[in-house]
Amino acid sequence: MTQNIRTVFWQDGRVALIDQRRLPHEFHINTYESYTAVADAIRTMVVRGAPAIGAAAGFGIAVAAQNSTAASFEQLQRELHEAERVLAESRPTAVNLFWALRRMMNRLGTLTDLPLDQVRAALLAEAQAIADEDVQTNQTMGAHGATFIPQNATIYHHCNTGALATVDWGTALGVIRSAHEQGKKPFVLVDETRPRLQGARLTSWELMRWGIDHQIVVDGASGHYMRTRGVDLCIVGADRIAANGDTANKIGTYNLALAAHAHNVPFYVAAPFSTVDLSLANGDQIPIEERSDDEVLCIGSERIAPEGAKAGNPAFDVTPNAYITAIITEYGVIRPPFEERLRAITAARR
Amino acid sequence: MTQNIRTVFWQDGRVALIDQRRLPHEFHINTYESYTAVADAIRTMVVRGAPAIGAAAGFGIAVAAQNSTAASFEQLQRELHEAERVLAESRPTAVNLFWALRRMMNRLGTLTDLPLDQVRAALLAEAQAIADEDVQTNQTMGAHGATFIPQNATIYHHCNTGALATVDWGTALGVIRSAHEQGKKPFVLVDETRPRLQGARLTSWELMRWGIDHQIVVDGASGHYMRTRGVDLCIVGADRIAANGDTANKIGTYNLALAAHAHNVPFYVAAPFSTVDLSLANGDQIPIEERSDDEVLCIGSERIAPEGAKAGNPAFDVTPNAYITAIITEYGVIRPPFEERLRAITAARR
Repeated sequence: MTQNIRTVFWQDGRVALIDQRRLPHEFHINTYESYTAVADAIRTMVVRGAPAIGAAAGFGIAVAAQNSTAASFEQLQRELHEAERVLAESRPTAVNLFWALRRMMNRLGTLTDLPLDQVRAALLAEAQAIADEDVQTNQTMGAHGATFIPQNATIYHHCNTGALATVDWGTALGVIRSAHEQGKKPFVLVDETRPRLQGARLTSWELMRWGIDHQIVVDGASGHYMRTRGVDLCIVGADRIAANGDTANKIGTYNLALAAHAHNVPFYVAAPFSTVDLSLANGDQIPIEERSDDEVLCIGSERIAPEGAKAGNPAFDVTPNAYITAIITEYGVIRPPFEERLRAITAARR
Repeated sequence: MTQNIRTVFWQDGRVALIDQRRLPHEFHINTYESYTAVADAIRTMVVRGAPAIGAAAGFGIAVAAQNSTAASFEQLQRELHEAERVLAESRPTAVNLFWALRRMMNRLGTLTDLPLDQVRAALLAEAQAIADEDVQTNQTMGAHGATFIPQNATIYHHCNTGALATVDWGTALGVIRSAHEQGKKPFVLVDETRPRLQGARLTSWELMRWGIDHQIVVDGASGHYMRTRGVDLCIVGADRIAANGDTANKIGTYNLALAAHAHNVPFYVAAPFSTVDLSLANGDQIPIEERSDDEVLCIGSERIAPEGAKAGNPAFDVTPNAYITAIITEYGVIRPPFEERLRAITAARR
């Protein structure tokens, strides 16, 4: 964040999170003393955005280790497996959550011979590394992605993928920020992103702080804007990318991709490689979270719909790979056919 | 409306309108004593929906005539031209407004030799005829359109096109209602329709009263639902149809059409022939109303977006004719090429 406040950080033995439910009107840091509280914060979307969720889960394991009064490694391991289970159940779609938990548990597996205090310290260091690497990853993606952004570009963006969706800097919005810092003067059409309005509430707030010109629009307007004014490109984040490049992201992303496709507007996905899930052949296998009706039927405390009305509330959709121009990662820009390149990068990193 | 209450009607020398801003939580009839008050009610969307706006404008001319103290036909004519001008400026996109005003003024032109009391009575009768014909037109469209609706169909619908958007019965929603009355058990996916949420507030309210099963969904979800569950057809209304069939309708309609096109889902437009504007060659010539930022930046009294943020708020978009399977009118079902058939029907009616 600006003023060096990260979205997710460790503070005096607690997990600190910017409370994103209170933005843009109030800026408030919540701190959490237990992994169950962290899981709750993820579930209720105090923190959201795939990379930020991953970092929060990493610190969730660290705080569980810190709080443990286990007398043996085996006891600590049992407790941390339980913490992993609870944190893993907080949200189903963003794979970065499971990636971060696995990374923490893998690290634990290397620490069997150490005194427990050193195990705790090493786990905190691992969580801190996940967070630090996320910032570095985003800035690298920003540099890769900014090469696609022409001077004075009009860019369509969905949901929030900025510093608030990550530890700092951002994924898709980080690319726009990098272009802005290169003096390219981007103009952003900001999908408000129903039902939780992350675009109107969070993306606009970040763009205002960064001094990037933008306009908030309803999610249904993308076809209209592409038809009637020039849009140079779309760029979005991702919650999970299957082996074939099919991409799960906030509900409404696929509709934006369909509009882009109809108007020959390039459609980029920017995501750290931790978002890639090669265990799933395609997007049909990605679990899509169904959230409470109330997110659609009410806004804030106000009920919109008639009493008794029902809603469908899928939190994500899947954009098939055919609609994606390229995937921007910290290892470079991946073009179709995605599967070959995604597997090659994975193999090279082993 | 149910209980024989129409959306727009004449009551004791006043124009009566169901106040659609207060639904679904309160059902309230407002009455208006002057044409300027009617124009205001149209502008502020007490009444909305192209056919309902047309009927309200017709009664607006009737109330202007009733209130006039003119001593001569020429004086009355001048006053009614001023009323026409003010009513015509209330909203720019729905052509039914201009159609109804022209019909009223054409009627006035046939009344030059009558005593002024009879002129006033004839104008009220003409406004009443516009309203009565609208109900008949909608029921005819309902019968035509219902033939396209299979048993147990899943139907996507945008905005509100029910009794509330017309004098009674509805256009697109009227087709669904006709199918329901034939025992076809339709299930409706109701786009909430940002920014003013006519789907969540009004369509759901009407469907509940009629006993039609439905689910409210955010506007960005149509691609997801078409990809992951069977959708049999989309049906929407129209605010203006150009000669080539390009159709202006509530913002978000084009995005729904793009999703339908990608998934081979038939996309129907249901509108009375008064919505057709043969003076415009194509949709690029249809004026698109840009409404206040506040409709996007705030919901009810609550501001969503950060202070200082700007919004774009086009109230309508244009769906190009290539995305429209057929246009359902009271004169039957029109398939591409639209222009030929639209002109032929117009010629036959002269």
